[in-house]
Amino acid sequence: MQALVLEQKGKLAIREIDLPLELGPDDVKIAIDTVGVCGSDVHYYTHGAIGPYVVREPMVLGHEAAGTVVAVGSNVETLDVGDRVCMEPGVPELTSRASKLGIYNVDPKVRFWATPPVHGVLAPFAVHPAAFTYKLPDNISFAEGAMVEPFAIGMQAAARARIAPGDVAAVIGCGPIGIMVALAALASGCSRVFISDFSAEKLAIAAQYPGIIPVNIAERPFADVIAAETGGWGADLVFEASGSAKAFSGIFDLVRPGGAVVLVGLPVEPVQFDVPGAISKEVRIETVFRYANIFDRALQLIASGKVDLKPLITETFRFEDSIRAFERAASARPTDIKLQIRMDSGKD
Amino acid sequence: MQALVLEQKGKLAIREIDLPLELGPDDVKIAIDTVGVCGSDVHYYTHGAIGPYVVREPMVLGHEAAGTVVAVGSNVETLDVGDRVCMEPGVPELTSRASKLGIYNVDPKVRFWATPPVHGVLAPFAVHPAAFTYKLPDNISFAEGAMVEPFAIGMQAAARARIAPGDVAAVIGCGPIGIMVALAALASGCSRVFISDFSAEKLAIAAQYPGIIPVNIAERPFADVIAAETGGWGADLVFEASGSAKAFSGIFDLVRPGGAVVLVGLPVEPVQFDVPGAISKEVRIETVFRYANIFDRALQLIASGKVDLKPLITETFRFEDSIRAFERAASARPTDIKLQIRMDSGKD
Amino acid sequence: MQALVLEQKGKLAIREIDLPLELGPDDVKIAIDTVGVCGSDVHYYTHGAIGPYVVREPMVLGHEAAGTVVAVGSNVETLDVGDRVCMEPGVPELTSRASKLGIYNVDPKVRFWATPPVHGVLAPFAVHPAAFTYKLPDNISFAEGAMVEPFAIGMQAAARARIAPGDVAAVIGCGPIGIMVALAALASGCSRVFISDFSAEKLAIAAQYPGIIPVNIAERPFADVIAAETGGWGADLVFEASGSAKAFSGIFDLVRPGGAVVLVGLPVEPVQFDVPGAISKEVRIETVFRYANIFDRALQLIASGKVDLKPLITETFRFEDSIRAFERAASARPTDIKLQIRMDSGKD
Amino acid sequence: MQALVLEQKGKLAIREIDLPLELGPDDVKIAIDTVGVCGSDVHYYTHGAIGPYVVREPMVLGHEAAGTVVAVGSNVETLDVGDRVCMEPGVPELTSRASKLGIYNVDPKVRFWATPPVHGVLAPFAVHPAAFTYKLPDNISFAEGAMVEPFAIGMQAAARARIAPGDVAAVIGCGPIGIMVALAALASGCSRVFISDFSAEKLAIAAQYPGIIPVNIAERPFADVIAAETGGWGADLVFEASGSAKAFSGIFDLVRPGGAVVLVGLPVEPVQFDVPGAISKEVRIETVFRYANIFDRALQLIASGKVDLKPLITETFRFEDSIRAFERAASARPTDIKLQIRMDSGKD
Repeated sequence: MQALVLEQKGKLAIREIDLPLELGPDDVKIAIDTVGVCGSDVHYYTHGAIGPYVVREPMVLGHEAAGTVVAVGSNVETLDVGDRVCMEPGVPELTSRASKLGIYNVDPKVRFWATPPVHGVLAPFAVHPAAFTYKLPDNISFAEGAMVEPFAIGMQAAARARIAPGDVAAVIGCGPIGIMVALAALASGCSRVFISDFSAEKLAIAAQYPGIIPVNIAERPFADVIAAETGGWGADLVFEASGSAKAFSGIFDLVRPGGAVVLVGLPVEPVQFDVPGAISKEVRIETVFRYANIFDRALQLIASGKVDLKPLITETFRFEDSIRAFERAASARPTDIKLQIRMDSGKD
Repeated sequence: MQALVLEQKGKLAIREIDLPLELGPDDVKIAIDTVGVCGSDVHYYTHGAIGPYVVREPMVLGHEAAGTVVAVGSNVETLDVGDRVCMEPGVPELTSRASKLGIYNVDPKVRFWATPPVHGVLAPFAVHPAAFTYKLPDNISFAEGAMVEPFAIGMQAAARARIAPGDVAAVIGCGPIGIMVALAALASGCSRVFISDFSAEKLAIAAQYPGIIPVNIAERPFADVIAAETGGWGADLVFEASGSAKAFSGIFDLVRPGGAVVLVGLPVEPVQFDVPGAISKEVRIETVFRYANIFDRALQLIASGKVDLKPLITETFRFEDSIRAFERAASARPTDIKLQIRMDSGKD
Repeated sequence: MQALVLEQKGKLAIREIDLPLELGPDDVKIAIDTVGVCGSDVHYYTHGAIGPYVVREPMVLGHEAAGTVVAVGSNVETLDVGDRVCMEPGVPELTSRASKLGIYNVDPKVRFWATPPVHGVLAPFAVHPAAFTYKLPDNISFAEGAMVEPFAIGMQAAARARIAPGDVAAVIGCGPIGIMVALAALASGCSRVFISDFSAEKLAIAAQYPGIIPVNIAERPFADVIAAETGGWGADLVFEASGSAKAFSGIFDLVRPGGAVVLVGLPVEPVQFDVPGAISKEVRIETVFRYANIFDRALQLIASGKVDLKPLITETFRFEDSIRAFERAASARPTDIKLQIRMDSGKD
Repeated sequence: MQALVLEQKGKLAIREIDLPLELGPDDVKIAIDTVGVCGSDVHYYTHGAIGPYVVREPMVLGHEAAGTVVAVGSNVETLDVGDRVCMEPGVPELTSRASKLGIYNVDPKVRFWATPPVHGVLAPFAVHPAAFTYKLPDNISFAEGAMVEPFAIGMQAAARARIAPGDVAAVIGCGPIGIMVALAALASGCSRVFISDFSAEKLAIAAQYPGIIPVNIAERPFADVIAAETGGWGADLVFEASGSAKAFSGIFDLVRPGGAVVLVGLPVEPVQFDVPGAISKEVRIETVFRYANIFDRALQLIASGKVDLKPLITETFRFEDSIRAFERAASARPTDIKLQIRMDSGKD
C-alpha cells in the first residue's frame, strides 16, 4: 500500500509500506478520500518530535481524514459499506477508568494516529473502531468531513468553557486553531468573538465571519479593545489559542470578574503565570486536550449550516503531490488555513 | 398621568391615575416609548387573576417596555439622561437571601410590574432602579427593546438547559413563548430546534428562521419525528412551552438517555407525570421562572444580529388604541405573535 | 453448580443449574462469598415481574455481591487471583453512545444481574468484566462489600444532587434506600439530613447516625419541620426515596427557592405533579437510575470510615437457608434493613 | 472609642479613635466580643501593605469577628437586639453587576474590613449591614463564631472545587488556611485529604482530625505519596494553600486526568506554570477569592458537629494585651494556628 511516510525528521517519501488492516469485529475498514495537513504533522516533519513523542521509526502521517466504509466487522450495527464517514483519530481503551468516566481523551493509553509510534492515514485504507467513526450527513462533503478533526478542538474548547448564552469571548491567536475556536464559540452561544493577532492577513480571513471581530494587536492592545467594548467589565471568556508564552502576560486583564480562561495552545517556552491576577477575579481556568464526545456534535453544527468551514480550505493537493503540500505547509503562509490532500484525485 | 388601567376583570380604561414617581438615589425615570402586550396582561384582563394573583384594585397593565431616561438618581453611575433603555419588570430586595445568591427571580419579595398589586407601565413615565434598567445598543430600536422581556424567558430557558454545543432540541408549543425558546436555544448552541404545534399558521411563522424545523403534530407524532431525526437516540433537550397538561404525556419519549426536559409553560390543569419514564433515562428536569441576569445577554445576542425579533412584531397600536390592542390580543389570532403599543405615536 | 433459582413467580429452589462461566480476556472469575437480598429480588419472587421485566424462564437471583477472584482473563491488569472484590451488576456495551459519554447506566443495552433474562449471582461462581469488578480495601469485609451496591444508589443520588457544602437535605422515606441516600448525602457535604417516615421503628434505625434527624410524619407534617428548622427557607435538597405517589403532593413545599428535588423511588401508581409549584421556585429536578462511576467512590468513603454500613446488616443467612431469607424479606419487617446470604458459611 | 490602631508599618497602639457608627436602615450595631488575628492583619503590621493595598492613614485592624447585636436598623427583619452573631467582613454594592450575579466577592467596589482605607473591628462596636451579619446557633460560641471567617475561605475553596462524593484531595501547605481547606474538603464530601508541609509540628495539628493524612515533604515527595495511595491515578482535587511559588513546580503530577487544581494561596514571587502538564490531563483550575454565600453554610457545618474548629484556637488574649497578641503572631510559631482577642475579658 502506498502511503506518505515520514522516514525521519525532514525526510518524506511516498512509498509502499505494510500497514495493519485486520478487521476486528468492532471495526470498519475505510477507503480514505481526503486528509488535512495539520500543524502537528508538519512539526513531526520539520522537528522529528513533539515534546515526549519522538519519531524513531518511519511513520505514516495524517490524522484529519474522511472516506468511505468498504468493510464492517461482525458486531458493527451503526455503519454499513458505502457510508461516507470521518474518523476520530484517538482510540482509547474502553475499559479504562478515564473511558468509563466519559473523558476518554485523557486515557493514558489512547493510541492516536500519526503520533509515534502509531501510523497515520495518508494511505489508501485504514481500519478503525466503528465507535470512533462517524457517518457524514449527505450535505457534508469529504473535504468538510476532513475538517471535523481540527474543528473538534475548537468545539472541545467551547464545551469546556461552559458558554452561557450571549457570552462575549476573546480569542488570542488567529491561526487555524484560533479560528476554529472562534467559530465554535460563536456557534455555541457567544454573541461576539474578538480575535487577536499581529497578522492582518490572518485576521482578514477570520473577519469574513459575521460575529468574529478582528483585533490587530500590532496596532492596539487587546485589553484596551475588550475594555472599551465591554464597558470595562471584561470578556466572559478568554481562549488562549496562540501557544505563545507571551500571551499569558496580562491575560487576566481581558477577563471579567468571575469569568473563565480556556487554554488551548501549547507553549513550548516556560510560562509566567499571574496567580494574584487570576485569584483577585476568581477566574476559572480550563484546559483542552484534543476532544471527547465531540465529533457528532461538530457534524450536527456543520450539517445545520450554523458553521461553514469551506472558506478555510485554502488548497487541495493530489496524493502524488503530498510532499509538496507538506513543504507548502512548512512555509507557513499567513493566508494558508488548511491544506488538504485527496487520496485519489481521479474520483468525483 | 394618563395610563391604561384595568379597572376590574373585563374592563379597561385609558384615564388619569396617580402613579408613584419619586426618584430614589438608585433610580432612573423613564419616558416610556413602546410596551408589548403579554399573554399575562391579557389574562388579567379576561380572567381578573392568575393563580394566587387577583386584581382587587384598578391596576395599570404592561411590563414589556422600552423608553428613554429622563432623570437619574444621585447614586446612578451607569445611565445618563437621554439613554435609550429597556427595563426588567421584576425588582427584588437586594438584601434577600435569594438576591445574594444571584437568583433574585425567586426572591419571594420580588415586586413585578402589572402583577397585583403592582402597577405596570402602560403610562407616559415610570421610575425604576437603575440596576434593572439596561441601555439599548444603538442598533436596537425601542420596538425590539420592548421584545427583550419575552425573549428573556426563552433565554432563561436556554440558560437553565445548560446547552452543550450542537445539542438537538425539541420545543413543545409554537406560541410566542415557544418561538422565543426556540430562538434562544438556537442562538445558544443548539444545532437544530424542532418545534411542534397543531396550528400550521403558527408553525409557518417559526419556520421562517433557518434551524427551526416545524412539526405539525396534527399530522405526525412529535416523538416519531424526533426518533427519525436522531437515529432513535432522542433530543438532547426538550422544552415544554405549551402549558398544556397533555404535553406531559409521553414527554420522556422525546428525550435521549441522560438528556434534559425544561419546563417553561404553566399548565392550569393537574399534570400526570411519568416518574419511571424519567428515571429510566435519568432525565434532568429544569424549571424556568421569569429570568435573572439575562437582559444584558439578550441584548448582546440581538445587537450582534444572531437573533432577529423584528419578524415577530405583528402590529403596533397607538396608545389611544390600546384597548383595541387588548381586544385583538384576547381574540388570539394564530398569526399574532406580538402586538405592541407606542405611548406617543407622534414621536420619531 | 447449585444456585438459588426463581423458577417462576412465588417459587424458589436451590438446585443445579448451568451458568455461563467462560472467561473472556477482559473478565475475571469470582468465588461469590456474600450476597445481599434486595427489594427487587424479592419483588421478582413475589410478583414475577418489575414493570416491563417479566420472569419467563427460571432465573438465578441476587445482584449485591462480594467475593474473591479465582481466575483472571489474559488482558486483565487491574486484578489478581486472590483479590477480594465487589461487583457492579450492570454491564453496558462499552462501544455505545451512552458509555462513551460516561453515562453507561443509561445504555439501553445494559445487561443487569437478576433482571430477566439475565441470571444473578446467588451461586458459587460468577464471571464478570474486570472493568466492573472493584478491589475491596483491606478494612472492608465481604459483608460490607455486598452493601456497596445498595449504597451506590444513595451515592448516585448524592452525586446527581450536586450537593453544595453545608446543604440541608430532606429525605422522604426511611426504607433501606432512604437510609442509603441519607448516609450518602451526609458523607457528601450535607450538614443535616432530615428523614421522614410513618414507621417509628424504621426512623429509630436511621436516628443512630449523628446528623440524620428522624421526622415521624404520623405526628407532624414534614414541611412544618423543614420550615421550622430552616427559618422558612426550605431544604436545599429533597430526595424522594419512598416510591409512593402520595409523596409528590406538596413536595415543592419542602424545597427552598432555587433548590433541587432528586427522584430515587419508583412509584407504581400515576403521579400528580405540581408544575406551577416547581416553576415558582425554579426547582431543579434530578432523577436517579442505578449508578455509574460510583463503586470506587463508595468504597473510598466506607474505607475511610466516613460511612459505616455495618449497623444496617440485620441478619446473615447460610446459602442453605436462602429461601428462608427470601421469605423473611418478603414479610417486610420494619426493622429489617438488609438481609444477607453467605455462599459458604463454613468459611472464615 | 478605644481600638487597636495600626498607626503605620510596625507601630500599633490601643487608643481612642473616631469610628463611623451611624446606623442605617439596613444595618445592625454589634458589640464586638471576639476577634481573631489573621495573617493579613499581621502582614499590614509588619509590612505596611499587601500588594496594592497600602496603609497610608491609621487603621483599626481585625476582620474575624463575633459579637452581640445591640441595635437594629428600621428595615431589618432578620436580626434582633441580643442576637449573637458573626460578620462577613466584605460589603459589596448590592446593585453591582457582580452582586446581581451572586458573586459579590469579586465586586470591584467591595469594602473589606481592615483593608486600607477601611477600618477593621478591633474595637468595642461596629455597624454592619444585616445582610452580611449571621446569627450564631446556640451551640456555637463567640470564639467559634470568630473562626467562621477563616473557615469560610476553606469552604469557598471546597465549593469552587465542586467536590464529587468520595473524592481524594491533596492540600499543599499546612498553615491555618491549608488546615481550613482540608477540614472543609473533608466535610464537603472528600473521603481522604492528604496535606503536605515541611513542618512536622504543623502536620501534627492537622493529623488530629480523622481523614486528614499528613505528609512530611521533607521526607518524601508529595507526588510519590499520592501516586502510591491512588494506584497511580492521582488525586481528584489538589488545593494549593501554601502561597509558595515553588509549590507550582510539579503540581500537575499530583492530580488525576480530568481532575482539578484549586488555587487559594497568594504567591508573592512570579510563578512558573506548566501549561502542557495541565493540558495533557485536561485539568480544570479554579481560583478562590475570599467567599460569597458561604457564612451560613459554614455555620451549618459547625453547628451540626461535622466540623470542630475549637482545637485550632491556640490562645486567647485580652484586648489590653492585643499588641502582645500581634507580636506573638508576627513570631510565627509553627504550633500557633489561631490567636484570638476578647474585647471585654471581664464578660462571661
